[in-house]
Amino acid sequence: MTRLLERNSERPLYEQIYEQVRDDILSGRYPNGKKLPSKRALAEQLQVSLITVENAYSQLIAEGYVRAAQRSGYFAAYSGEAVANPGSKHRKLPENIKRDESMPQTGQQEFVRKSAGEEIFPFSVWTRLMRSVILEKGTRLLQPVDNGGAYELREAISDYLYRARGFYTPPENIIVGSGTEYLYNLLIQFLGRDKVFGIEEPGFPKLPKIYALNNVRFEYIPLDNSGMRVDELENRCVDIAHISPAHHFPTGIVMPISRRREILNWAESGERYIIEDDYDSEFRRNGKPLPTIFGSDDFSRVIYINTFSQTIAPSVRISYMCLSDELRERWREKLGFYACSVPAFEQYTLARFISEGYFERHINRARKRFKRVSELSDRLITGFGNVKISEENAGLHFTVKLTENVSEIVEKCAKCGIKVTPLKSYYASGTACESALFLVNYAGADEEKLIECLQ
Amino acid sequence: MTRLLERNSERPLYEQIYEQVRDDILSGRYPNGKKLPSKRALAEQLQVSLITVENAYSQLIAEGYVRAAQRSGYFAAYSGEAVANPGSKHRKLPENIKRDESMPQTGQQEFVRKSAGEEIFPFSVWTRLMRSVILEKGTRLLQPVDNGGAYELREAISDYLYRARGFYTPPENIIVGSGTEYLYNLLIQFLGRDKVFGIEEPGFPKLPKIYALNNVRFEYIPLDNSGMRVDELENRCVDIAHISPAHHFPTGIVMPISRRREILNWAESGERYIIEDDYDSEFRRNGKPLPTIFGSDDFSRVIYINTFSQTIAPSVRISYMCLSDELRERWREKLGFYACSVPAFEQYTLARFISEGYFERHINRARKRFKRVSELSDRLITGFGNVKISEENAGLHFTVKLTENVSEIVEKCAKCGIKVTPLKSYYASGTACESALFLVNYAGADEEKLIECLQ
Repeated sequence: MTRLLERNSERPLYEQIYEQVRDDILSGRYPNGKKLPSKRALAEQLQVSLITVENAYSQLIAEGYVRAAQRSGYFAAYSGEAVANPGSKHRKLPENIKRDESMPQTGQQEFVRKSAGEEIFPFSVWTRLMRSVILEKGTRLLQPVDNGGAYELREAISDYLYRARGFYTPPENIIVGSGTEYLYNLLIQFLGRDKVFGIEEPGFPKLPKIYALNNVRFEYIPLDNSGMRVDELENRCVDIAHISPAHHFPTGIVMPISRRREILNWAESGERYIIEDDYDSEFRRNGKPLPTIFGSDDFSRVIYINTFSQTIAPSVRISYMCLSDELRERWREKLGFYACSVPAFEQYTLARFISEGYFERHINRARKRFKRVSELSDRLITGFGNVKISEENAGLHFTVKLTENVSEIVEKCAKCGIKVTPLKSYYASGTACESALFLVNYAGADEEKLIECLQ
Repeated sequence: MTRLLERNSERPLYEQIYEQVRDDILSGRYPNGKKLPSKRALAEQLQVSLITVENAYSQLIAEGYVRAAQRSGYFAAYSGEAVANPGSKHRKLPENIKRDESMPQTGQQEFVRKSAGEEIFPFSVWTRLMRSVILEKGTRLLQPVDNGGAYELREAISDYLYRARGFYTPPENIIVGSGTEYLYNLLIQFLGRDKVFGIEEPGFPKLPKIYALNNVRFEYIPLDNSGMRVDELENRCVDIAHISPAHHFPTGIVMPISRRREILNWAESGERYIIEDDYDSEFRRNGKPLPTIFGSDDFSRVIYINTFSQTIAPSVRISYMCLSDELRERWREKLGFYACSVPAFEQYTLARFISEGYFERHINRARKRFKRVSELSDRLITGFGNVKISEENAGLHFTVKLTENVSEIVEKCAKCGIKVTPLKSYYASGTACESALFLVNYAGADEEKLIECLQ
């Protein structure tokens, strides 16, 4: 095994190690089940610190290429096929776009919040951009934008996705809409009411409501440890799988590469589609972001959907979808007459916020805040003893098993702005869930109060 | 016949005369078909100018209470019932709201455009309001608004509707959404996919597309001179009639009071509803605005819908619906979970634009512009000779019968920003329409070019 690390590269060493091991697994050099070198051995061999190898292994584990077995080491956990190479959409990248590798990592220190009670969103930047949009656009603000959205916003999103999510989609294939709820409604019209939709059980409570109001058949598909079960998609004759592989709500499951491949195979083997709901992928805290299924879809089977309501503010109702060339064409024919539902002004402001780098700096700051708040919440709850926390270092929530002091824990958390709700309330049939499991949502946590409570 | 006019009242004399004659018809003092006094005789009797009586009679004709027969005078044209009193919702008006009777009339002179080429929308006012909203709201702009919309916008709309459209609906019963296309989608979910919808034939081409994409059964209902035919609603087992009684697109028909009453009776006699699409009622140019069907609905059968995309700018995607108390409650239960799809910032800005009086001043100015442009377009087309124009002094379009010089007329109009399209393209079955009829849309007309062309 020869491994040459580029020590003067801008790409972090851990990322280079991650990629080499991943490629070894994909190429079959490490077949499924084969033991990998220990972290210590690899660190010594490559002359890097132990923590660098640890970071690389964490990323491989998070993506599902590697599994860790207690006390016995690390094993390849994926039977690679060349086609499974994440990011197949890179091939389509036009020459004038350069990939920016400076996606903020956990170590960066800029824009640290001064006080826990302060709003972390850079509101003064946002309003400055609003003012400059008013000034520069003038009466052009009154002119309608393209039905798919303002081009400069779609361009900013396209560039951002390439930097942050590792896939390239041309601006023309991005459709902007006023919130994911609105886009779900359009997606049902697009994919067809005669189709059977499969939604995650447990999952977002609004989703079944929207499908029901649209009178389409939908099935609750159970999850296992890797996310939505593909055998159940088959059993229930589902046509469209609506999933959140980056970080499932509410369980926090991150779909490993093997299941991603499996679900993509399922979609490719018929007239089937995947709605990849990437709603909180920005808040992944360790290592680089996980690749998307959309990025490795070569057969127009995946629709990527994401929102800025989670990352900027709920009052900013802007979401978007990415379609393949083929689906984009079909969209234009079938739903192209719908006017874009987001005011032009909001779109121009957001476009600048993204393209001038503020969005990623904000996300980075938010990520750090949520990391701190998550750790504090963790400490607050474990302080009561006899609890088991399941945490993926992602998103704005984790799950916990509580058998004692439940009401005291719920009450104490509530005081700090942390919502603790029974996990079973996210199941259509509450009985399918162990009643000791709870969802801890720290999106609205008050950091100062948390620190106070812990003293 | 005793008629006492309040000469010192703020209410115009013509409006007092209009109301007295209307009440005489409603009470049966003038039964259907009975001849009314001539304009000259009435003017003499009341000691007012001929033009005052003319204005009153025009309004009565526009609303369908009176018909004019060439050379033989004016006749009552409606069999009144007390229940048909327009504006029954006035009874619900809370005490703290005072009706403002100063709705701009055609005669007012403020805010006249300086040059025909200028944008008539007061953009500098709009941006000043934007800036003051940013300053005063601060980070509250980031907080989500109520699912029905920002309260201050709903309040401003409620007050505006009372002043301009003559009915009162509490702010809680107003639902704000990002465009009528979005609200149509929600309405289908609200009223139910098992229902049969009736749409106007001819009509807005987007409407059948939206109903079709939602897989609901809909029927094209033919019109006669009074608008949608109620016998056809019965024949085709329609549950929900989607109509634009104030000014039908594209024919320009204004639904007379008798048909309004008839269609309301139809709705009341079963589990049936009316969607009253009031999309361009603001642009009515003569006399006071026509009453709405919503305003005389006592049995929760009518949903009122309107938009600001027509009156402000297509890039401002804000529309709204008014529901009765009963329907509002059902909405809350069934669709209340949907977040409001309009950004908070846009809502606050529009709220101020309305409540500080700018909206009505803008509408008034726009109305005058469209009156001028409509007259100029009229002259341009009649210049070609042998054409018959049908004009309702409302909206942004009229229809014309063209038998000669069609392509020259279309071309000349296009040069001035006026679109002339065959009326039959608005019929689902093009054959149902006389091919010599054309729609003249002057919304985008260039006034200066028009004047130039006419010299």
